[in-house]
Amino acid sequence: MRSERRLFLADGPKAVEGALEVPERVVEVFATPAAAEQYDALLAGVDVSLVDDRALASLSDAVNPAGVVAVCRHFDTPLDAVLAEGAATLLAICADVRDPGNAGTVIRCADAAGADGVVLAGDSVDAYNPKTVRASVGSLFHVPFAIERDPVAAVRAAQAAGLTVLAADGGGEVDLFEADDLLARPTAWLFGNEAWGLPAELAALADHGVRIPILGRAESLNLATAAALCLYASARAGMRGH
Amino acid sequence: MRSERRLFLADGPKAVEGALEVPERVVEVFATPAAAEQYDALLAGVDVSLVDDRALASLSDAVNPAGVVAVCRHFDTPLDAVLAEGAATLLAICADVRDPGNAGTVIRCADAAGADGVVLAGDSVDAYNPKTVRASVGSLFHVPFAIERDPVAAVRAAQAAGLTVLAADGGGEVDLFEADDLLARPTAWLFGNEAWGLPAELAALADHGVRIPILGRAESLNLATAAALCLYASARAGMRGH
Repeated sequence: MRSERRLFLADGPKAVEGALEVPERVVEVFATPAAAEQYDALLAGVDVSLVDDRALASLSDAVNPAGVVAVCRHFDTPLDAVLAEGAATLLAICADVRDPGNAGTVIRCADAAGADGVVLAGDSVDAYNPKTVRASVGSLFHVPFAIERDPVAAVRAAQAAGLTVLAADGGGEVDLFEADDLLARPTAWLFGNEAWGLPAELAALADHGVRIPILGRAESLNLATAAALCLYASARAGMRGH
Repeated sequence: MRSERRLFLADGPKAVEGALEVPERVVEVFATPAAAEQYDALLAGVDVSLVDDRALASLSDAVNPAGVVAVCRHFDTPLDAVLAEGAATLLAICADVRDPGNAGTVIRCADAAGADGVVLAGDSVDAYNPKTVRASVGSLFHVPFAIERDPVAAVRAAQAAGLTVLAADGGGEVDLFEADDLLARPTAWLFGNEAWGLPAELAALADHGVRIPILGRAESLNLATAAALCLYASARAGMRGH
C-alpha cells in the first residue's frame, strides 16, 4: 500500500534532515516526545505529530528506532532530467544491484565523490527500501537519482548526453591506475550485480571496460568497494584535469 | 567451547580452499555427498568426512550452506612476526572495528591492494567470527594477520619497524589526493571504529592524519570504503614510486 501511494519512510534524524531540505517531499513527521526534544534544532518550524514509543516503533523498521521518522513522497528524477542537468560530468549507473545496503553505499560514495547523479537500472533494488535509505546516510536526498528499468536505455542515454561509459569489470582492458586521461572525461560508470557482474551484452555497450588492479591474492572486490575506487578515481582525475 | 579449543569453522568452498592451502591448519573437513561431488577438484586428496544435510547445517551458520566446511585451528600471527616479515611496506591496523562484515571487507581490500598484513587491535571483532571469514572471501587465509589487544602497542610496534603510521581521519591535516610522496613510504594505515572513529589519544600517536576529500554533501564514508580508498592510494603511490 505504501508503495502504491508512492510514499516511503525516512527513518532517523539523518534521513529526516535530508528529507526536510525539500519540504514538499514530506507528508508528515512523527516523533516521540523525547526525540522531539532531542532533535529540536532539526525540527524547528516543522509540524511534528507526537506519538508514543510503541507507535513510533510500528512505523520504523530499525532495531533501535531513533524516535523520529518522516513519511515522504517518492522523488526520483526522470533519467533525462538527471542527464540534462547539462554539466553532468560524473554519473553512476547500477545495473541489477540487488542488495539494499550496497545500493545505499554506492549512493553515499557517489555523493562523497561529487557525482552528479545515480541511475538504478534494470532489476536494481528499490531506492526507497528502508535499508537503502539508511545505508545512504542522507545521500539519497542529496544526489539526483533516476530509476530506469532498461539498463540498455540508461547506457545509450548517457552516451547520447556526451558521457563516456566505463564498465567496471574485472576483465576490462583498461587499468584504473593507468587511465587518468580517460577518467578526466565526463564519465558514466556502469556497475553490475554483486554476484554475477555485468551481462556481456551490456558491458559490450560501454565505451571501455576498466579493471581495478588486484595486487594480492583476492579474486575480486565487493561492489560498493569497487564503486568507491572507480568514482574516486574519476573525481581525482577530474580535479587534476581542471 | 570452540573458542576455548581455538578452533573455528571455514564455511563454504572459498573458505575451505583458503584453509587447505596450509594443510596443518585443518583439523577436519566435512561435506555432504552432493557437495563432495560438486567440489571434487577442491577436495582431491583430502580426507573428507561425509555427513548428511542436517548434520552439515548444524555446523554451518550460513542460511544456505554450500555443503562443505573445514574445522580449522586458529592461525593468527604474532604482531612481531607480521612486522618482521622485513619487507612489510603496507599494513592495515584496525582499532576497535566491531562489525564482522567490515573487518572481513577490510581484510579483503588489504589483500587486493597488496598489503603485507592486517592487525586487529583493541576491541576489534573476532577474526574467526563466521561473518568475518565469509566477508573476507578467502583473504583471511591469504594475508598474515595479528590480534593485539593494545592498539597503542600496535602503533608503536609499526613505527619501531620503520613504518609511517597514517591515521585515516576525516579531520586529518593531509589530503589523500595530495599525498603521493608521503604514501610512497612504507605505511601502516590506522582505521578506527565504524561509529566513533579513532580515539584522539590514539590518532595523536600517528605520524599524520589523512582525510579523504568529500566533494559532495556526504558527511563521511563508511569504514570499509575509506579503508579501500586509503589502501589503494598507497598501492598506487607505491607502484609509481618504484
